[in-house]
Amino acid sequence: MGFNKPYLTGNEQVYIQEAISGLHLSGNGQFTKKCQTFFENRYGFKKCFLTTSCTDALEMAAILAEIVPGDEVIMPSFTFVSTANAFVLRGAKIVFCDSRSDHPGMDESLIESLVTPRTKAIVPVHYAGVACDMDVIMAVANKYNLLVIEDAAQAIDSFYTGEDGVKRPLGSIGHMAAFSFHETKNIISGEGGMLVVNDERFIERAEIIWEKGTNRAAFFRGDIDKYGWIDVGSSFLPSEIIAAFLWAQLVALDKIQARRKVIWNTYYDGLAELQDLGIRLPKIPDFATNNAHMFYLIMPSLEERSLLIYKMRQTDIHLVFHYQSLHNSPFYLSQGKEISLRKSEEYSDSLVRLPFYYELDIIRVLEGILN
Amino acid sequence: MGFNKPYLTGNEQVYIQEAISGLHLSGNGQFTKKCQTFFENRYGFKKCFLTTSCTDALEMAAILAEIVPGDEVIMPSFTFVSTANAFVLRGAKIVFCDSRSDHPGMDESLIESLVTPRTKAIVPVHYAGVACDMDVIMAVANKYNLLVIEDAAQAIDSFYTGEDGVKRPLGSIGHMAAFSFHETKNIISGEGGMLVVNDERFIERAEIIWEKGTNRAAFFRGDIDKYGWIDVGSSFLPSEIIAAFLWAQLVALDKIQARRKVIWNTYYDGLAELQDLGIRLPKIPDFATNNAHMFYLIMPSLEERSLLIYKMRQTDIHLVFHYQSLHNSPFYLSQGKEISLRKSEEYSDSLVRLPFYYELDIIRVLEGILN
Repeated sequence: MGFNKPYLTGNEQVYIQEAISGLHLSGNGQFTKKCQTFFENRYGFKKCFLTTSCTDALEMAAILAEIVPGDEVIMPSFTFVSTANAFVLRGAKIVFCDSRSDHPGMDESLIESLVTPRTKAIVPVHYAGVACDMDVIMAVANKYNLLVIEDAAQAIDSFYTGEDGVKRPLGSIGHMAAFSFHETKNIISGEGGMLVVNDERFIERAEIIWEKGTNRAAFFRGDIDKYGWIDVGSSFLPSEIIAAFLWAQLVALDKIQARRKVIWNTYYDGLAELQDLGIRLPKIPDFATNNAHMFYLIMPSLEERSLLIYKMRQTDIHLVFHYQSLHNSPFYLSQGKEISLRKSEEYSDSLVRLPFYYELDIIRVLEGILN
Repeated sequence: MGFNKPYLTGNEQVYIQEAISGLHLSGNGQFTKKCQTFFENRYGFKKCFLTTSCTDALEMAAILAEIVPGDEVIMPSFTFVSTANAFVLRGAKIVFCDSRSDHPGMDESLIESLVTPRTKAIVPVHYAGVACDMDVIMAVANKYNLLVIEDAAQAIDSFYTGEDGVKRPLGSIGHMAAFSFHETKNIISGEGGMLVVNDERFIERAEIIWEKGTNRAAFFRGDIDKYGWIDVGSSFLPSEIIAAFLWAQLVALDKIQARRKVIWNTYYDGLAELQDLGIRLPKIPDFATNNAHMFYLIMPSLEERSLLIYKMRQTDIHLVFHYQSLHNSPFYLSQGKEISLRKSEEYSDSLVRLPFYYELDIIRVLEGILN
């Protein structure tokens, strides 16, 4: 039993056939627009741009944020390399923040102490789809005039309730946000991602950067009579074939989410007794919702985690650990910076993810773990 | 009648179904490997990496070339914005070279005069799939220790014969090369591209940058026991769905190329008489082959080109002009550099592309133009 198995709604091929028959195979066709509109309408995202990956969405955000060499960007160390690389590619210095003790997300109370005159942005990562405390983060950002780019790779259909009592979708709170539709996510397109631009100041330029640095979009709207090179940019648009696949998934979003929540709750209830052994279960803070992206355990030690992974593999059930803390990576250390982030290191050593997918035989996993 | 119509072999859906059924939907699966191996075997490319676009392939090349701010990169002005943007994103100063008088490709004899101590790379663009004079370019590169990155976006299945009499595939001559499979190309995958790495010095790092700056590939080969952040990088891999589409096209490459060459020759023979009116037909230098990517006319003036486009549109046949010279673009001019490249400007004003695709009703176009 693998750790992940992509779920197919059955309509992916139908929509792909439609895209292929329509002979619009490059980007920004009707399926791209349908997907983008879906997100804008359902979650109130100001403006959405499908991208070829969440990495690319973060890179687009880094360009829009006008990161220049020497700018500092604050983010958790316990995250995927792309969170950092997107900004390193623009010359940023990455400032790593430790994790919370009750959750792998960044410890919001530490952020302000990391701000310097060179800080340009904060990139909170909603680990496992569970919100960071956005009120705290937005307050620091507003105080020091920083941009907030939510790394919402895992956070589709998840929410944050701030002190005002309003429940806001993740991805709608920061100035920008990046989502992933990689095959390991709740909603997938194989490879794929999306940039959300909530701050209107960035929308016009986002359209240009998305279209390779040209004003092609304005040209096709008829605003101008020829288009040309007006900015930097890249080829961020996914093919319509990818957008068609994604559309099939979005149509089934509620069904997928409902099933995943049942799986998550079954894990939680079934494994609650492990807490007596010092094994921790995921905690969802009061301000956050659970989008059932992932179920993990926090083992008492690296050794006990290795043992559990080994034991389960004997019964052909594949558990996997997660991020190596980026501050301990060869790349970061090669730059001569050595720091210690104890919580992040603990999650790198002790967190283990259980198989999680729509068609999971959860009873088999529960039996394997509890025996 | 549109200017382009993507050609489907009929097997795209078959292979996409196979990819989807196999449940490997992210990148670097069996279809990606099949496509890469196809190119390595058929054209002797040292190492191939599918990418989400030719733009991304160029960006990957720019990272591998270790372009740093202030480095100069020589390229034609008559090219697509991505040729330049990929290097601008790394901080390069773009040095534009004029076109040949007999062909829109860059005038190789001018390159050496553009070399300075800051020059790092030359990016020849094989316009319309017709080779630049690579002997001249490689000689300048060797003399000044520069990298050559072929922009082979349009140059699949095209060749160059140097003074040694050996016929070499375009993309196999420079240190690196970038191909496009955008829906407007001979062989397509909607959006898509490929980086070719011919210089072995770059292969190991290319593998890492392709995999988001991690040594994931070495991990899956079993060379190391966990993978981590060891370099910059991005998410360059296309989904297996895209690779499956591309595979269907590659299987039919000879058939597609044969038909396109018939179309090209029919255009050439049918329109030869236009030369008496001062209208120029494409010229293929002796050292180059014709891969039938595009058929264009060079009109005596901007006015006559506009008239022809207008006249043809009355019969619902869409002719299109091509690149606005990048040295005259708002982006380049905004940096306060004003230069004149007469040939490039002429091609921007006078070149017009005729509809060109597998299922083209060429008789209708010929009648329209000649009447």
